Amino acid sequence: MTTMRQFVGEVLRARRADRGFSIRELSARSRVSQGYISEVERGQKEPSSELLAALADALDVPLSSVLREVADQLETAEVRSQLASVSSIGADTVRASAA
Amino acid sequence: MTTMRQFVGEVLRARRADRGFSIRELSARSRVSQGYISEVERGQKEPSSELLAALADALDVPLSSVLREVADQLETAEVRSQLASVSSIGADTVRASAA
Repeated sequence: MTTMRQFVGEVLRARRADRGFSIRELSARSRVSQGYISEVERGQKEPSSELLAALADALDVPLSSVLREVADQLETAEVRSQLASVSSIGADTVRASAA
Repeated sequence: MTTMRQFVGEVLRARRADRGFSIRELSARSRVSQGYISEVERGQKEPSSELLAALADALDVPLSSVLREVADQLETAEVRSQLASVSSIGADTVRASAA
């Protein structure tokens, strides 16, 4: 299952694209290094609360809206994962009944 | 301003209270140490995505709902902080006009 960290990265990258900023520009605005931003966007680094706040600020978006979007994506993943386990239980039941 | 980390801690503590678990019980269920849980709840440690997922799982709550509550609290704090800066600008304007 996709971790929260990966969704955080995806949402941040999408917000940066919305604003039309390069990583270099976001780095200059946020004073966060380009390498770090890139790692966060790829879901490889767990950003601290302070760093997330600095990035959201530099993107002119409230951190709460970034977080809400992460929550929405996480919920979709949770539902999909539940559905997958329900349908695998369903398939097992069908197989067990057939046996 | 309160950091996201502090809200994460508050929400996790509230969810633990809802479930009636002690830190010791949550620790046993989540396999996260009591000291670590306590630091996370007090907003002193930035939990990794994996740790947050383990705690949410042990609390039988979707991580997305924890995150959404954090987003709500963060939004309230953001609005309060904006209101405070608007009213301080207002006060400056009044003072400037009076001068």
